[in-house]
Amino acid sequence: MTEVFVLNGKFVDQNNAIVSAEDRGFQFGDGVYEVIRAYNGKPFCMDRHLSRMKQGLEAIRIPMPLGIKEFEKLCNEALEKSGLKEALIYIQVTRGAAPRQHIPPKGLKPTFVIIVRGTPDIPPELKEQGVKISLSPDIRWHKCYIKTVQLLPNTMAKEEAKEKGAFEAVFFRDGIITEGSSSNIFIVKGGRVFTHPANERILHGITRGVAIEIAEGLGIEVEERAFSPEELLKADEAFLTGTGTEIMPVVQVDDDIIGNGKPGHITKKIMEKFKEITNCL
Amino acid sequence: MTEVFVLNGKFVDQNNAIVSAEDRGFQFGDGVYEVIRAYNGKPFCMDRHLSRMKQGLEAIRIPMPLGIKEFEKLCNEALEKSGLKEALIYIQVTRGAAPRQHIPPKGLKPTFVIIVRGTPDIPPELKEQGVKISLSPDIRWHKCYIKTVQLLPNTMAKEEAKEKGAFEAVFFRDGIITEGSSSNIFIVKGGRVFTHPANERILHGITRGVAIEIAEGLGIEVEERAFSPEELLKADEAFLTGTGTEIMPVVQVDDDIIGNGKPGHITKKIMEKFKEITNCL
Repeated sequence: MTEVFVLNGKFVDQNNAIVSAEDRGFQFGDGVYEVIRAYNGKPFCMDRHLSRMKQGLEAIRIPMPLGIKEFEKLCNEALEKSGLKEALIYIQVTRGAAPRQHIPPKGLKPTFVIIVRGTPDIPPELKEQGVKISLSPDIRWHKCYIKTVQLLPNTMAKEEAKEKGAFEAVFFRDGIITEGSSSNIFIVKGGRVFTHPANERILHGITRGVAIEIAEGLGIEVEERAFSPEELLKADEAFLTGTGTEIMPVVQVDDDIIGNGKPGHITKKIMEKFKEITNCL
Repeated sequence: MTEVFVLNGKFVDQNNAIVSAEDRGFQFGDGVYEVIRAYNGKPFCMDRHLSRMKQGLEAIRIPMPLGIKEFEKLCNEALEKSGLKEALIYIQVTRGAAPRQHIPPKGLKPTFVIIVRGTPDIPPELKEQGVKISLSPDIRWHKCYIKTVQLLPNTMAKEEAKEKGAFEAVFFRDGIITEGSSSNIFIVKGGRVFTHPANERILHGITRGVAIEIAEGLGIEVEERAFSPEELLKADEAFLTGTGTEIMPVVQVDDDIIGNGKPGHITKKIMEKFKEITNCL
């Protein structure tokens, strides 16, 4: 078995992983999600993902349908059932189903879904050679720190980037680079690492946090400071972070080459340490 | 019978009005919707709603699962089955279901749902007395002309407005009033009617269009021009338009009274004509 579906706490087969057409997740984008990666059969940073999910639910006033410990237990069970060692655990919680009206009725029972699947099929040579990214106006809403399922602008940007031969779309707004459609972005300049501060304009990525900790642990100075598209183009190095992406060197931004066109020295050090940590799980 | 559910063209009972937990409407907000009002058993402006839906689907590259004529037929059938004379016909089309990844696989089959229900329970005295609205920062994405199901900022704003005793939240962005959380807004000043131009920042409301046509038909000058919160507060009259809202006088904005605190003369003329048109269906 390779795919596992859990609906409101019960293991179901794919055909029964169904929700009401009146679920507010379906009709209003009224829910949040998390994607947790398992290495060697062990979920990585599950506590951080579930804490962020709890905060996101609080921000939009959806009660947690289970405690964090119960979610952990269920995710571990689902992962075990899948038989997968390398996997993505997808969790989605929505406000629940009700006859459609903007203001939800009181006392709705949240819907929650867990889906376990294999990891994304990213060719390994991309990590060795680095990728091209494409810049895209950040037209998303203004509370990007909440990991809601309102992902249409992200999917649209990613699709346009793909059409340009790019691995990822990276957003800019008000003259600054915010983040990627499903990743955070870092630059390296003069031996220092920069990334957008963890405010309302970006998702506070778990892998972003891990990358900062790794860099600091390696004695590399990290500054959480916004940078412009021009600074990105003039950077010595750049890299993306994300649960699916892990740490991915960026060597090209649209038609411009970053640094010497190869993954940078500091990027590689952070990647190596990340690999070491996740290999030891 | 009062509620009717149609799933991918088939009439189903409420328990079978279900979609996959991997539907992109549920996981990505990847879909559009329409709400059509029926008066006296006849859908009002159904052609305009379905044309807008078609345009919205084109904008996000989802194929129309049925032709406009077929949608019309199905909506009429569903309305008839409901036995309702006054009803809302809700239509939602999403990109379909697939294992989760941002870029959708080619050839997905769109999901579509039609739900017919009674009209919202708006106390009739509100139309006579007018309502209070509350201003709210417009934190939505930048393609508000596409009627997507990414409605979380709308529902959050409407809930906050309700907590302040207001009927509707009205958004402002970059110093201008855009629209309401589920309505468009008009002001009247010096005998002329103003409303935000139909650009990317607002939904091009069907009732908005009808109100403009009515005003022009009555010889009232209408200008599609953005106005500021200050202009709203100094307006002689203000009103909201929407499929559920119809035409609703605004007499208060947060703590400020509009005009003399009663529904304005021009607003009432437009409301009367709107009632006349919909009564004659």
